[in-house]
Amino acid sequence: MHKNKEEFLTETVTLLQNNSRRCFFSMISKSKIKQLSSLALKKYRNKEGLFLVEGDKMVLELAKSKIRIAEIMTTEAFEPSIRDQGLFAENTTTVTRDELKKISQLKTPQNSLAVCYLPVSRDIPEVLEEDLTIYLDGIQDPGNLGTILRICDWFGIPNIFCSAETVDPFNPKVIQASMGSFARVTLTECDFDQIRTIATNSGAIIYGTFMEGENVYTQDLSSKSILVMGNEGNGISEKVKKHVDQKISIPNFSSDTQKAESLNVSVATAILCSEFKRRSF
Amino acid sequence: MHKNKEEFLTETVTLLQNNSRRCFFSMISKSKIKQLSSLALKKYRNKEGLFLVEGDKMVLELAKSKIRIAEIMTTEAFEPSIRDQGLFAENTTTVTRDELKKISQLKTPQNSLAVCYLPVSRDIPEVLEEDLTIYLDGIQDPGNLGTILRICDWFGIPNIFCSAETVDPFNPKVIQASMGSFARVTLTECDFDQIRTIATNSGAIIYGTFMEGENVYTQDLSSKSILVMGNEGNGISEKVKKHVDQKISIPNFSSDTQKAESLNVSVATAILCSEFKRRSF
Repeated sequence: MHKNKEEFLTETVTLLQNNSRRCFFSMISKSKIKQLSSLALKKYRNKEGLFLVEGDKMVLELAKSKIRIAEIMTTEAFEPSIRDQGLFAENTTTVTRDELKKISQLKTPQNSLAVCYLPVSRDIPEVLEEDLTIYLDGIQDPGNLGTILRICDWFGIPNIFCSAETVDPFNPKVIQASMGSFARVTLTECDFDQIRTIATNSGAIIYGTFMEGENVYTQDLSSKSILVMGNEGNGISEKVKKHVDQKISIPNFSSDTQKAESLNVSVATAILCSEFKRRSF
Repeated sequence: MHKNKEEFLTETVTLLQNNSRRCFFSMISKSKIKQLSSLALKKYRNKEGLFLVEGDKMVLELAKSKIRIAEIMTTEAFEPSIRDQGLFAENTTTVTRDELKKISQLKTPQNSLAVCYLPVSRDIPEVLEEDLTIYLDGIQDPGNLGTILRICDWFGIPNIFCSAETVDPFNPKVIQASMGSFARVTLTECDFDQIRTIATNSGAIIYGTFMEGENVYTQDLSSKSILVMGNEGNGISEKVKKHVDQKISIPNFSSDTQKAESLNVSVATAILCSEFKRRSF
C-alpha cells in the first residue's frame, strides 16, 4: 500500500499530529469560555480588541469580508463548510456543541462561531463623497441597528455615522440582525458638531425626521444629503435638532381616528433611504 | 364620622364585598393558568375562541379598539392605569406578578394581560374599495407579520389578505410586534384563486416582488393594486406566481461586489407601500 517506509512514517506522524491537535483543541478551558462569552459586553470587547460573530450563516459570510478573524470554533461536522469557504486556518478549533453553547449568546444552537478583531476606527472625512449619508442619533435597540445596517448596505450607503449614545455595532444582537451587512458597512462614532462642519464643507443639507416635518414625498431633496434618524423613544436630541436644516416626515395615511402612532425607526429609515435614492432614476 | 347607621353599614358591606372579591379572584387555579397559557398555541386559541394580549402598553391600546375583552388580569398597582383607560370591568381579576408570569409568554415581567375574543372572520369582498391591498403569501416570522401590520396601519391599508401558510395574526409575538396595530387592521385568510377573481372584478393589477422584476421606481403603478409579498426564504409560491400580472423589484444600490443579498420582507413591504402611496401626491 505504501511505496516505502519513509512515506508510511510521514503519513502516520501527520495523522497522529492532526489527531492530537484535535484532542488538544477540543478541550477549551473554563477561563477561555469565560473570556469569549464576556465579549457579549462592550467593555470586554474594547479591552480585548475582539468581537464574536455567531451563527453559521454569519460565520461563512466572513469569507467575503475585510474583517480579520482571530479564531474560528466549529463542530467537526461543520468543518467542511468552513473549509469550503476558505475560512479553515491554523487557528481553527474543533469544539463540541455544548462548548459552543457556553460561549454563544444565541438561543438556537449553532455549529460555529468566529472570534474577530475589532476593526480600526475609520478616519472621519473632511468632505462627503456619497450622495446620501446617514447619522444615527442614539438608536438603542440592537435589532433596529442591525436592520438599519442591512438597509444601508442595500441602498449603497457604506459609511454611517452615529452619536456616542448609539448601541455598539459589535453587540452580538446587532451582528445577527444585520444578516452579514455588518461586514460591508462601517459605523463611525462622530460628534454632531463635526458632522455640521463636514456638511458645510460638502455643501450638504442636513435632514431630520420630525412629526411636524414637511411631507418628504413632495420635497426637493438635495443631491448631497445627511439624513438624521433619532432615538426610538425620544427622536432626535435637542443638541442635534438645532443643526437640522430641513425637517421632513413620512405622511400618515391612516384614515382611522386611532392612527398608528409611529413607524419603527428601521422601517422609517428604509422608506426614507428609498425616497432619497429613487430620485437618481 | 358617619351620618347614620345605614350609611355606615352600606359602606362596610361594600368594603367587605370588594375585599372578598379581590381575595377570591387573586387565587387563580392551576387549571386556569394552564388554560390561559395554552392560548400561546393556535390550536387552543381556535378551540377556546380566545387570544391573549400581553404587555401593559398593548392592554391599554385595547381601550381604543373594537376587540372584545373577556377578562383583564392586572396587578393591584396597575389597576388605576387600567381604570383610567375605561378598561376596568366586572371581569377584571387582580393577580400577582408571579401568577402573570406563569400565564405570559413575555420575557420581561409586566403588570397586566387581557383575554380577548377572537374576532369573527371578515367576509371576503367581491370588489376592492381601497387603492392598495396587500396579500401575504406565507409570511412565517411573527415579528415580520407584526411589523407588516404596523406598516399597513400607517399607510392606511386596513384590509390585508393572506394564504393559509401565513403565521396566525393572534400569535402572541405578532401581537407584540404590531405595537397595537393588530387592533386596527384585519388579516383575512383567502385562497389566491379568489383574489384573482376579485382583482378582475375590481380592475386591479396584481404586483409581485421578484429578483428579476422591473424597477418599481420607474414603473407606472395602477391606482387599483394588489401587492403580493412572499415567504421569507422562498419568496412568492409557484401557485401565486402564475397569477401575478407584473413583477417588480426594489433596485439594489450597493456598489460592493459582495452586495446585500436581500431586504427583510417587512422592510421591503414598507418601501413598496411607500412607493405605491406616495404617487397619490
